Amino acid sequence: MEKTVLFETAEYAARLVAVKNEMSKRGLDVLLISEPPHINYLTGYDAYSLYIPQMVVVTTDHPEPIWIGRGMDRISASMTTHLSEENIRSFPDAYVHSALSPYDYVAEVVKEIAGDSPRIAVEMSGYFYSAQAHADLLNALPNAKFENANLLVNWIRLVKSPAEIAVMREAGKITDVMMERAIAFIEPGVRECDIAAEVYHQMMAGTPEYGGTYPCSPPFLCIGDRALAPHAAWTDARLPSSTIVNLELFGNRNRYQVNLARTIHVGEPKPAYHKLADVVVDALNGGLDAVRPGTTSEEVTAAFSSILSKHGIKKESRLGYSIGVGYPPAVGEKTVSLRMGDKTVLQPGMCFHMMSGLWLEKDGVTITQSFVVTDNGYEALTSLPRRLYVK
Amino acid sequence: MEKTVLFETAEYAARLVAVKNEMSKRGLDVLLISEPPHINYLTGYDAYSLYIPQMVVVTTDHPEPIWIGRGMDRISASMTTHLSEENIRSFPDAYVHSALSPYDYVAEVVKEIAGDSPRIAVEMSGYFYSAQAHADLLNALPNAKFENANLLVNWIRLVKSPAEIAVMREAGKITDVMMERAIAFIEPGVRECDIAAEVYHQMMAGTPEYGGTYPCSPPFLCIGDRALAPHAAWTDARLPSSTIVNLELFGNRNRYQVNLARTIHVGEPKPAYHKLADVVVDALNGGLDAVRPGTTSEEVTAAFSSILSKHGIKKESRLGYSIGVGYPPAVGEKTVSLRMGDKTVLQPGMCFHMMSGLWLEKDGVTITQSFVVTDNGYEALTSLPRRLYVK
Repeated sequence: MEKTVLFETAEYAARLVAVKNEMSKRGLDVLLISEPPHINYLTGYDAYSLYIPQMVVVTTDHPEPIWIGRGMDRISASMTTHLSEENIRSFPDAYVHSALSPYDYVAEVVKEIAGDSPRIAVEMSGYFYSAQAHADLLNALPNAKFENANLLVNWIRLVKSPAEIAVMREAGKITDVMMERAIAFIEPGVRECDIAAEVYHQMMAGTPEYGGTYPCSPPFLCIGDRALAPHAAWTDARLPSSTIVNLELFGNRNRYQVNLARTIHVGEPKPAYHKLADVVVDALNGGLDAVRPGTTSEEVTAAFSSILSKHGIKKESRLGYSIGVGYPPAVGEKTVSLRMGDKTVLQPGMCFHMMSGLWLEKDGVTITQSFVVTDNGYEALTSLPRRLYVK
Repeated sequence: MEKTVLFETAEYAARLVAVKNEMSKRGLDVLLISEPPHINYLTGYDAYSLYIPQMVVVTTDHPEPIWIGRGMDRISASMTTHLSEENIRSFPDAYVHSALSPYDYVAEVVKEIAGDSPRIAVEMSGYFYSAQAHADLLNALPNAKFENANLLVNWIRLVKSPAEIAVMREAGKITDVMMERAIAFIEPGVRECDIAAEVYHQMMAGTPEYGGTYPCSPPFLCIGDRALAPHAAWTDARLPSSTIVNLELFGNRNRYQVNLARTIHVGEPKPAYHKLADVVVDALNGGLDAVRPGTTSEEVTAAFSSILSKHGIKKESRLGYSIGVGYPPAVGEKTVSLRMGDKTVLQPGMCFHMMSGLWLEKDGVTITQSFVVTDNGYEALTSLPRRLYVK
């Protein structure tokens, strides 16, 4: 069996140190990690097993994290992590969708390495930490003290290492070729589902040098009436001779994802729509020009909004969010948002999707940019020109 | 704005009656639904918005369910449901990934329609009901009585209507053409990611008559060493001249998914491997032949296992699970499993994936069948022959 761990041992060790330091600061004995990107971030573990309970246990004492999952997935843990075999634990299939709780198994591991009354933190808002999971753990560990570790690992993930940025650049190149292929394919008469087919094909085929993998969420193809519905599913209707196609696509390389949205107008748009697109591009460029270490998320948002407001336009939704390693259902790291009120100071290595999409009463236009903060500004993670495309 | 609701009003009304009857039986005033397939099942709502809190509120008094979601997604609710506008509620974007809780907004709606001390049931084990969601609701509704509605809707979903089965058949046809395309494409030298590209392209392109959509989980391409790791991600390695490719694919039509796995052996396998595949096919056929109304899940499993055990083989994992409407992260309905101990009596309209994959110490083989229980047996939901493919 060949190991295929994404990063060197030292990369994971540095992440673990950061987590353990934060645990010590908070006086925690045990951190129970349920979020799949965090499990990947701290161990390298990669398999699509997230729909069955799985956890990584970090304690301040135990040198390595302990992976806990379903029996049939332990081989994936052996292949994709540097963990020693004794730190890979698994429960039998009788625990799957049955009256048995995998969290009882987790509780036994916790007792074994941290006794029966540790201070434990859990990811209360995680996508994969259900109300029942919490109830089961409280029940199985009645003497433990539980705290909320919401976003603890998320904040550590915020600044990407050079090794991570290299993977993000690869993801961005896949995103570029996906969008180029979609723009080339779109024309009156093609079915919406066939646009999705082209996009997905390129998402996996990637580039001749490296392939891609499944995204954290499906791409968004919002067409015609549904251009105003940002998360609508595509249909198998054929494109009419004049319509708006708002595409939000995601290239994904080794679970790192880079987002990109463009509007493709089928048929010549009215001058007012061209004008709207120009305003969005201006505002987007203004926002990007404000990006540099030391600036705050709010200041970047203000730079964007001030250009929009000159034209009497207000964007209701946030301007962006940090991106990085991810699994379904979503890539967003849930920490920094580009929006008013967010005072986070930008640092080199932070990665964002500036989601400058506008959904106004009658029209939607989505022209966006993902980027990494550099020492003196930003580096774009995709290279497709920021403009409206007309086909 | 054009409405595109999948089923007639009467279909949703019948489902709602079944849910309300079950609520009355349990003495519930309010059911808070968080699982995306349940939201779809009871209202038709379809958009990929599940990564932000969303709920459907059902009360025994209020005629229609009430959809609650993010402001930018209410247009999708208007388009994809029969709900009247006053039963579509939404919270502003300031609630997204911020210190504000969307569950406070939900609590206000509950108070408005059911007072401040109702008996409420929530989906404790749901993928989209976090420990924090529960804590926030308990906090916002201190006088309410909370109960567990785990699997309440799941059990109602178990028997599919004729309209649903028609959609499942369409999904199955997409699944067939996906697998046929993969088998045709696979040969020594192709990259694993390019197999994924072909599969995804066909998943969306569907058939000339109708297209497909995104699956509940990525397809599984378990190749070579990773043939033993059922949920491994594909790589961009090239296929060698002799290897095992275990594919599990999912066609998805209007959120209804049908699963299918086949093993494609690149290069001529050893006789023992042919033998293993034959045994699995025999056992699968034996399991299927046992399917009819009145038989139990356990009896079907026993019919399968008795054939395996003649050859000294034991399958560790469950033999299958019910399938139907789904969203990421998984299609499994979490109710009936085909396994020993499950005494569920089969009824016409139940749909299952008989997941007869075997992962033994050295070899894996996956040849499976999805089916619907009919009045006197089963109807296969895919038509690809049940056999080993050699390329």
